[in-house]
Amino acid sequence: MTFLEVTMTSSARHGLFSGMFARGGATPEVSDAAWLAAMLDVEAALATAQAKAGLVPWEAASAVREACEPEHFDLAELGRAAVPTGNPVIPLVAALRERVGPEVRRFVHYGATSQDVNDTASMLVASRALAPLTADLSACAGACARLAVEHRDTVMAGRTILQHAVPITFGLKAAGWLSAVNHGLAGLSDLQLPVQYGGAAGTLAVLRGRGHEVLPYLAAELELVEPVLPWHTDRTPIARLACALGTAAGTLGKIATDVKLLSQPEVAEAAEASAPGRGGSSTMPHKRNPVGAMSALACVQRVPGLVATALGGMLHEHERAAGLWQAEWETLSDLLRLTGSAAAWLREALEGMTVDAGRMRANLGATRGLMMAEHVVVKLGGAPRARTLVDAACARAADGGDTLRETLLADPEVDLTPGEVDAALDPTGYLGSAEAFVDRALRAHTDRP
Amino acid sequence: MTFLEVTMTSSARHGLFSGMFARGGATPEVSDAAWLAAMLDVEAALATAQAKAGLVPWEAASAVREACEPEHFDLAELGRAAVPTGNPVIPLVAALRERVGPEVRRFVHYGATSQDVNDTASMLVASRALAPLTADLSACAGACARLAVEHRDTVMAGRTILQHAVPITFGLKAAGWLSAVNHGLAGLSDLQLPVQYGGAAGTLAVLRGRGHEVLPYLAAELELVEPVLPWHTDRTPIARLACALGTAAGTLGKIATDVKLLSQPEVAEAAEASAPGRGGSSTMPHKRNPVGAMSALACVQRVPGLVATALGGMLHEHERAAGLWQAEWETLSDLLRLTGSAAAWLREALEGMTVDAGRMRANLGATRGLMMAEHVVVKLGGAPRARTLVDAACARAADGGDTLRETLLADPEVDLTPGEVDAALDPTGYLGSAEAFVDRALRAHTDRP
Amino acid sequence: MTFLEVTMTSSARHGLFSGMFARGGATPEVSDAAWLAAMLDVEAALATAQAKAGLVPWEAASAVREACEPEHFDLAELGRAAVPTGNPVIPLVAALRERVGPEVRRFVHYGATSQDVNDTASMLVASRALAPLTADLSACAGACARLAVEHRDTVMAGRTILQHAVPITFGLKAAGWLSAVNHGLAGLSDLQLPVQYGGAAGTLAVLRGRGHEVLPYLAAELELVEPVLPWHTDRTPIARLACALGTAAGTLGKIATDVKLLSQPEVAEAAEASAPGRGGSSTMPHKRNPVGAMSALACVQRVPGLVATALGGMLHEHERAAGLWQAEWETLSDLLRLTGSAAAWLREALEGMTVDAGRMRANLGATRGLMMAEHVVVKLGGAPRARTLVDAACARAADGGDTLRETLLADPEVDLTPGEVDAALDPTGYLGSAEAFVDRALRAHTDRP
Amino acid sequence: MTFLEVTMTSSARHGLFSGMFARGGATPEVSDAAWLAAMLDVEAALATAQAKAGLVPWEAASAVREACEPEHFDLAELGRAAVPTGNPVIPLVAALRERVGPEVRRFVHYGATSQDVNDTASMLVASRALAPLTADLSACAGACARLAVEHRDTVMAGRTILQHAVPITFGLKAAGWLSAVNHGLAGLSDLQLPVQYGGAAGTLAVLRGRGHEVLPYLAAELELVEPVLPWHTDRTPIARLACALGTAAGTLGKIATDVKLLSQPEVAEAAEASAPGRGGSSTMPHKRNPVGAMSALACVQRVPGLVATALGGMLHEHERAAGLWQAEWETLSDLLRLTGSAAAWLREALEGMTVDAGRMRANLGATRGLMMAEHVVVKLGGAPRARTLVDAACARAADGGDTLRETLLADPEVDLTPGEVDAALDPTGYLGSAEAFVDRALRAHTDRP
Repeated sequence: MTFLEVTMTSSARHGLFSGMFARGGATPEVSDAAWLAAMLDVEAALATAQAKAGLVPWEAASAVREACEPEHFDLAELGRAAVPTGNPVIPLVAALRERVGPEVRRFVHYGATSQDVNDTASMLVASRALAPLTADLSACAGACARLAVEHRDTVMAGRTILQHAVPITFGLKAAGWLSAVNHGLAGLSDLQLPVQYGGAAGTLAVLRGRGHEVLPYLAAELELVEPVLPWHTDRTPIARLACALGTAAGTLGKIATDVKLLSQPEVAEAAEASAPGRGGSSTMPHKRNPVGAMSALACVQRVPGLVATALGGMLHEHERAAGLWQAEWETLSDLLRLTGSAAAWLREALEGMTVDAGRMRANLGATRGLMMAEHVVVKLGGAPRARTLVDAACARAADGGDTLRETLLADPEVDLTPGEVDAALDPTGYLGSAEAFVDRALRAHTDRP
Repeated sequence: MTFLEVTMTSSARHGLFSGMFARGGATPEVSDAAWLAAMLDVEAALATAQAKAGLVPWEAASAVREACEPEHFDLAELGRAAVPTGNPVIPLVAALRERVGPEVRRFVHYGATSQDVNDTASMLVASRALAPLTADLSACAGACARLAVEHRDTVMAGRTILQHAVPITFGLKAAGWLSAVNHGLAGLSDLQLPVQYGGAAGTLAVLRGRGHEVLPYLAAELELVEPVLPWHTDRTPIARLACALGTAAGTLGKIATDVKLLSQPEVAEAAEASAPGRGGSSTMPHKRNPVGAMSALACVQRVPGLVATALGGMLHEHERAAGLWQAEWETLSDLLRLTGSAAAWLREALEGMTVDAGRMRANLGATRGLMMAEHVVVKLGGAPRARTLVDAACARAADGGDTLRETLLADPEVDLTPGEVDAALDPTGYLGSAEAFVDRALRAHTDRP
Repeated sequence: MTFLEVTMTSSARHGLFSGMFARGGATPEVSDAAWLAAMLDVEAALATAQAKAGLVPWEAASAVREACEPEHFDLAELGRAAVPTGNPVIPLVAALRERVGPEVRRFVHYGATSQDVNDTASMLVASRALAPLTADLSACAGACARLAVEHRDTVMAGRTILQHAVPITFGLKAAGWLSAVNHGLAGLSDLQLPVQYGGAAGTLAVLRGRGHEVLPYLAAELELVEPVLPWHTDRTPIARLACALGTAAGTLGKIATDVKLLSQPEVAEAAEASAPGRGGSSTMPHKRNPVGAMSALACVQRVPGLVATALGGMLHEHERAAGLWQAEWETLSDLLRLTGSAAAWLREALEGMTVDAGRMRANLGATRGLMMAEHVVVKLGGAPRARTLVDAACARAADGGDTLRETLLADPEVDLTPGEVDAALDPTGYLGSAEAFVDRALRAHTDRP
Repeated sequence: MTFLEVTMTSSARHGLFSGMFARGGATPEVSDAAWLAAMLDVEAALATAQAKAGLVPWEAASAVREACEPEHFDLAELGRAAVPTGNPVIPLVAALRERVGPEVRRFVHYGATSQDVNDTASMLVASRALAPLTADLSACAGACARLAVEHRDTVMAGRTILQHAVPITFGLKAAGWLSAVNHGLAGLSDLQLPVQYGGAAGTLAVLRGRGHEVLPYLAAELELVEPVLPWHTDRTPIARLACALGTAAGTLGKIATDVKLLSQPEVAEAAEASAPGRGGSSTMPHKRNPVGAMSALACVQRVPGLVATALGGMLHEHERAAGLWQAEWETLSDLLRLTGSAAAWLREALEGMTVDAGRMRANLGATRGLMMAEHVVVKLGGAPRARTLVDAACARAADGGDTLRETLLADPEVDLTPGEVDAALDPTGYLGSAEAFVDRALRAHTDRP
């Protein structure tokens, strides 16, 4: 068992509610142990980068790097020791200095301020959590693409304002999910996560005018981006990260909403993978809840408020904020954890999804043909008089309980043969560009960078 | 060490950032261990209440109650077992049934649904966390009241839009803090935290029409309130709790904002308690940051987004929500933890606050008398012409760098003797109802229920 | 046409989107014209209150009061004139002084600061907007109560996680709506809306120590509440108002969610009132969208973010905030307008609601009897073995497509006669306390203060 | 006076609070008149694009285009007529059809659904509002760049947690503002605003499989982007727009916060442009409030809640949402209006900013040299023992009221000559990479795309 595995017996990982909110690979990457490891990686990379920049002797950098092993540090103790200053980096640096020889001590955290370490660690944590998170999102996209291919011709009711509108295909619906998830993924891929290194107030004064030379080396060491300036109080990197996660989470929420609605027993057109005990109830033996969609929705619901916290927290005072900065730490972890969990839940729901094409076709009849009214207008020539005619037929059919077919055939003003009426009422003949759109979505999926 | 102490080695309690966000007595009360304990208290109270209502044999109720001991249950295991259903109560009930004899099993969780247990536990958790939280808020109020009494006559600049306005007393400022905190406290005291018991869909069907008779006994057992109906999808209790916490947190944020601003070195009128290492920096030896105000602000900043999550999550579908309900759990814990931490931080800051009355008086001169301009208008009779005269004098004084006194005395149109000018410019002579307001705030504080 | 009607040709009232977001009686009460009228009412009441307190001559007070007629003021001009100071009260006071004789001028806005006027006006605006808003909420409650009475015995599927759970009655569902709306109403009734009067920095210095004597008269004049202190930077009155609106809006959102779901063509258990053109589409002749629920949801969705803005804006600096105060004005208007519109929309939807009891009963069969599984467990004695038996039967029925009845009768281990099975599967025999709960909700409704 | 000018007498433009919240060029572009004009532009462009795609006769397209003149339509009437359907496009299309000959009617809004028009109009409105908004942001950046150049050598206190940290230059502070604003601008420049065209449920069924061929023509007509699919329920374009505005607003808020703090009379290092009456008070003659920063902050404070509304509203059901879609309309307008107003306010504040370099230098002494403590540690060799020595010296200086200089010179363990102490305490000798960072920011500004 690795250090990370050992120390990760935290509530986020193995807590009472972690079954819901700590799914997928992002959660361990935002644990306290992962943050501590990232902070130590930053201190180590800083020493190395400074050696490369010729500002610190290589021996000192090596000594610092060696000392930066997480297992030497007691996370709970650091947390407690952070109370007087409100910052765990301060006791961490003190502990790190204890672990190196006296002549090396001054090169620990050299020229840095605690925010340098904390901010760079936050970008490192984000970068590491985004890997499994985007893998789960990509898997969601893959599952949607497979559904789009497989159900290219599966006709179902298109629903607007939860009412039947005109026919679509389930392939088109899945293509829409695919396109949304890929937009969410693109926003995450576009992120530029910068290192932070500015010293006490952004001047790197300790390094006497050469501090900024460290930046490219530091960025390269950590596979992060070199910023133009220290961004101690320019929080656009945090805001963009929060926003990209919020947008990606929203796309997952849209899909989960559809899955939730399609799973209703009266609709019953799609269902998540079932397994013994999955979706069960403490009291109702028959229950098969769409637990993946439900859990994804529970995660997604919590995201916009956190994004607002991140954006509302951009108003940092002067060269370091009194509170707004610190408010970002757990907010960022929660955003990564919740978006990651939603992706993991939805991946499972989508990969195991069963689709009932027969039920989809049956449900097309729920409005006794009324869903095809737009098509009848088209067949009648599309002019306003045609709309008026069909409006009246719809009203009569709705009132009388007849089918639209019966009503149309009984209407002397409707100048259509029974064959033409049947053609007008055939959902498969009124799918427009559905297939073309499926192809476009699949092509964009294949061509994505 | 008690069970709670043992199991509370969670990240919330002893994590890297817990120094900042897990202060005060509310945090342990929202830990996973506390939730588990509350859930077991609910199951035990339910059995007892059902026995009192004559629906369950007393022996069975006793057996259930005995089984409800937290140390018998493995929190992490329950968390893992919650994955297939998204709910830890389901495996908890299964584990509880394992612990009682076969004839008692049916009386475990009798007639209840998992939401009954989880919701009632959430109210119990809230009730228990509110005790230390309101104690810290009351201590904040007490500290403000002491400052108001002590500094009833300490004159300082009143500041609007961060500019000097007219003189006030620090006692009045503290009275304003006092009044705000007491408003926050009143909102928390008004809360009615109800038990939940409705069974699978709010009918308590298993109890064949007698289930609602259990409600008053259950409420009495847990010292919570009896609801009119099950509130499975009427989330007003959650919304009100979130709102009352959000309002209380806001009052703390207002005070912390003032403390932060008063502590600026150029202002330096008040300072938090200092102690070795408190408010220090990893690199700057001289730093004495207002760490209490800063940390309170960090907590408070995170609250409004969580309240929005709670309110946005009221749209529960039908008889139990698919996601919005589950989204409440950690949100509620975070709200209690963060508001509680802010109260604990601010209590410390206020109880140890030092006030520099001399600096307050000195700062009154920062505008070279301009702050007294309103008073000069009053002394000149208050009519618009007086305002015009003083406007011009202020403009000249501001441009020329002279004091307002010099400018007024040099102005032939200003019909005031030097003595009258001095009286007009004396801050202690222009405090209006400051003292009366201090008295009103102290009286309301003493008279509060 | 009154002044208010004339000037209310504002975008909020007659704009492109006002059909959706400016329904009901609250909207005109938050218009710019209504704010202006309220500001003038405050200036008039202030003069009167000061006369009653013996601080202003009665003649002057009368002159001020006479000048405070909205038709004398040009709203757009005031808005433009507010630019240099960020506050419309400043040019309003100047214009008001123009309208009175020179000897009265000093008694206009006497001792007040612009925030006194703006804050008291905000409470007046809120008070006036809450009257129609709560009337619409009360009408919603009344409609729910009628539905609860009428459908006390209308059996339908109880749905949890959007799946069938156990039977309920539509009366119980309506009783739950009733209870939620009444909770929302209670929160609004509990509000205490205070006047504001503190002068430049909360000391009322201009009134030389007697200013606070004006407060009870001012409160009585405006039928608002007397505060303990000026609350220039204690924003609990704003926070509480926002929170009470947010909570009330949430209860409306819950009901609208249910209406939206019940209106789905596959469910079709309830429908909003229909009228020619209502719920129509630009292209689909047959469309009958649940436009009331949809519009209520559109309004409600916008509320939690506004509440977060109000709560996040409590951190006012010193004696008047630089921005957070001003951010409240439109936020408050929007909260009243949107909650009021949601109430108006939902009132219409509920008052015209048609319920299809036959469809409700038909839908009970959607799970081929599985919904009654819990009852079968009860009939089998409720012990874990009974649950195991029924679990297996449900799984077989679900897989095979048989009804639960067939499966149970075919199972040699199920020791129930066909008559007993039928009784177990009869939804009307498994309604528990549904009726008792309806009675409790109706009683609470009748007994509310 | 143009049509837009005439109809723009809306509350947003000339209302009581528009001085604060309707500044800059974005406001008219989000007015109801601008929305109506955009909707008509969409209908006209659609007809043209369909003619180009060979789906509509050119004569019909011309007739439609000619009919699409805003002055033919009554905005308030459309708003009223939108009530039964919740959508102003429906009566707009009806009115438009009235204006063309009978044979052209069917080509009005051909194959489109109201959401196509509304969504494309929203992108057009955004595109048009972003032009003046980004112009104001660019002007802010330009003003910051000028300040950075001009104050490259103006030394001032760097402040962290509102306490003095180490010296910086005002040029570096302005460079940080510049960098932040440019990040905000870059986010807005990256936006891809797509047209919407999908018909009733995203299949463009009326156009019999050729509808998607219209998309590139429609995008070209409107200078918007062609989407892969209709995005009726993939709300990433809305989410990204909201997020980019939220991020840009946050950068403005950071600058306004600094301006607010620098303008305090005790700090007085910078001031907004002053003008007669600007920043005045209704009662205090001397007041010169930082009204630009204040107003920008008032706008910015309202943005994060609106972004949360946009993100929380991504969970659109099926092929068109029941409420979440409609909730976007005013939210989007408010986001553009408020961010635009903040940019306009801040532009004015920055362009007229006066900087008091003398006061900056004077304030460097506020801590009696303590601010240079880090430098003393460096001069003493930087090792932990040096830190311990200086810690002690700082404590003694803080307690005794002596300067750090006196304390250091009196300390036998401090091995520095008076000249070395003076060098250590000289702020201009401890600016590190400040100048290099200013250059980097200016270079990035010049090189931006």
